[in-house]
Amino acid sequence: MARTGRRPGNVDTRAQILAVARAHFAELGYDGVSLRGIARTAGVDPALLHHYFAGKSALFAEVMQLPVDPAVALPMALRGPLEGLGERLVRFFLGLWESPDTRPQMLTWFRSSLATEEGAQRLREFVTREVLSRVIAAVPAEQRSPRRTALVGAHLAGLGVGRYLIRLGPLAEATVDQLVADVGPVLQHYLIAPLPDEDGLA
Amino acid sequence: MARTGRRPGNVDTRAQILAVARAHFAELGYDGVSLRGIARTAGVDPALLHHYFAGKSALFAEVMQLPVDPAVALPMALRGPLEGLGERLVRFFLGLWESPDTRPQMLTWFRSSLATEEGAQRLREFVTREVLSRVIAAVPAEQRSPRRTALVGAHLAGLGVGRYLIRLGPLAEATVDQLVADVGPVLQHYLIAPLPDEDGLA
Repeated sequence: MARTGRRPGNVDTRAQILAVARAHFAELGYDGVSLRGIARTAGVDPALLHHYFAGKSALFAEVMQLPVDPAVALPMALRGPLEGLGERLVRFFLGLWESPDTRPQMLTWFRSSLATEEGAQRLREFVTREVLSRVIAAVPAEQRSPRRTALVGAHLAGLGVGRYLIRLGPLAEATVDQLVADVGPVLQHYLIAPLPDEDGLA
Repeated sequence: MARTGRRPGNVDTRAQILAVARAHFAELGYDGVSLRGIARTAGVDPALLHHYFAGKSALFAEVMQLPVDPAVALPMALRGPLEGLGERLVRFFLGLWESPDTRPQMLTWFRSSLATEEGAQRLREFVTREVLSRVIAAVPAEQRSPRRTALVGAHLAGLGVGRYLIRLGPLAEATVDQLVADVGPVLQHYLIAPLPDEDGLA
């Protein structure tokens, strides 16, 4: 299906894949999209799609203009001793917002995701599959809790909302180091510490 | 504008416009709503809608008669022993969302607040003046921290986003009691516990 005249590196082909991907993600959500389906609609060989994009999350990151592909960036952020996991997570998350180059992308992504049911579904599926699954895998198996891991995501989302969208004064004025010191231990608590009502059910 | 010629039927018309507006805001977010569309669904002339409401933001403000007046409800929620403050706060917040009567209002309020700079400003001023000021006043003076109190607000906002807007599976499926047990101690930690880098600067 890689048709005549289309060479790898063809800007138009790449743009066409992205246009199709944008439509598919918007229509089908994250989980409903397949790279094969995008390739078919775009009229390109799946191998060519993989030549341009490392995977579904990379394609989604490009379509949504995310600053990073979590499949690449998260493993780097999570790597390290277990006791610093919470702090590394919040520092990584804040870093996505702190750069003037990437903050507009984060703002747009958050706003569009929260504005509609379709956006919320897309965010839910993407975060569950590409983000939270990686975060929970960094925790020893016997201490994993999907609910507490989701609370980590919720807390980070709230931090992004509070500091960058709503800009509550004390959060907007805080330094990254202050927020890492405040929030890191709380994320660590959610990720690692067993809570009184937790006995592996969650 | 309360003119002499007003018939009792006008009250119903006004209430009907508000009911339609509430549904539209909940469904479409703030930007997606048009007064023309509300008038059409309500079966009234757009000029009549303008007779009752100065504009979209005025209509929204009235629709957003929040489920509770924080000046009344928050002191009740905050009252009690200091050690249960975090749990009472999260239970109060979740209560605003759990009722089918008030959840659409909360959804609309969150969505509209996060969609635009104007909404963000409105939320920031409202939360700072009417909510966080009351929460921090419930903490002994020497342990108050505007930044940690703002983190309480950010965490609750994230919980609302994660459970009710994005509907992350483990948060959407949790019981209120589970979330109170999870999040209450964390809010208590932010509100009360001195953190290593806290020395009254924040």
